[in-house]
Amino acid sequence: MPKHYTQLDHVFQALADPTRRAVLQRLSSGSASTLELARPFDMALPSFTQHLDMLERCGLVKSIKSGRVRTYALAPKRLQVAEDWILGRRELWERRLDQLDAYVRTMKGNDNER
Amino acid sequence: MPKHYTQLDHVFQALADPTRRAVLQRLSSGSASTLELARPFDMALPSFTQHLDMLERCGLVKSIKSGRVRTYALAPKRLQVAEDWILGRRELWERRLDQLDAYVRTMKGNDNER
Repeated sequence: MPKHYTQLDHVFQALADPTRRAVLQRLSSGSASTLELARPFDMALPSFTQHLDMLERCGLVKSIKSGRVRTYALAPKRLQVAEDWILGRRELWERRLDQLDAYVRTMKGNDNER
Repeated sequence: MPKHYTQLDHVFQALADPTRRAVLQRLSSGSASTLELARPFDMALPSFTQHLDMLERCGLVKSIKSGRVRTYALAPKRLQVAEDWILGRRELWERRLDQLDAYVRTMKGNDNER
């Protein structure tokens, strides 16, 4: 099984939580500190930072620490891995629908020729 | 929190496993029975059908039973929910890069005018 698969496991696992998705959504509009990110959530800070840790471990965000403040930013390349997987499936699916469509047209053509 | 969120939790959770992703990939090229789907996996059938059950519960596949054979097919609408979420994030991110680009161009323009 390609290495890609383990990355995908972690990325989809990270996306399977509304708090983590909300953090990614917030970071889409710019980088933010731990406290700025935590503010909208009714959650103890240690629980919240576990979500940030998970996002950073799987490579969806990156952070730098300056003094006491850790600032997070989106690392969009890893989200691309998940996007590529989903779009790849859609492409296969659409090709299959096209084949079905072509088949139906051929059958109709055969009917008309009779 | 919108209803959408719970659906997304389940869909991303379902996608976070290589066996379930492989089943979706297989179904992208056409419907298949439980045994056909199980064949490539070195896994006890009850464990494998748990994966199929999870995919069906979250709406990524649908199945019909005819006699003793259950046949599965992809239900691509639910995959669209995950795709929409990811593409939405990318759009925000790209808009942000565009803004940054415009800002850099403005700053360069100001420099040239000096």
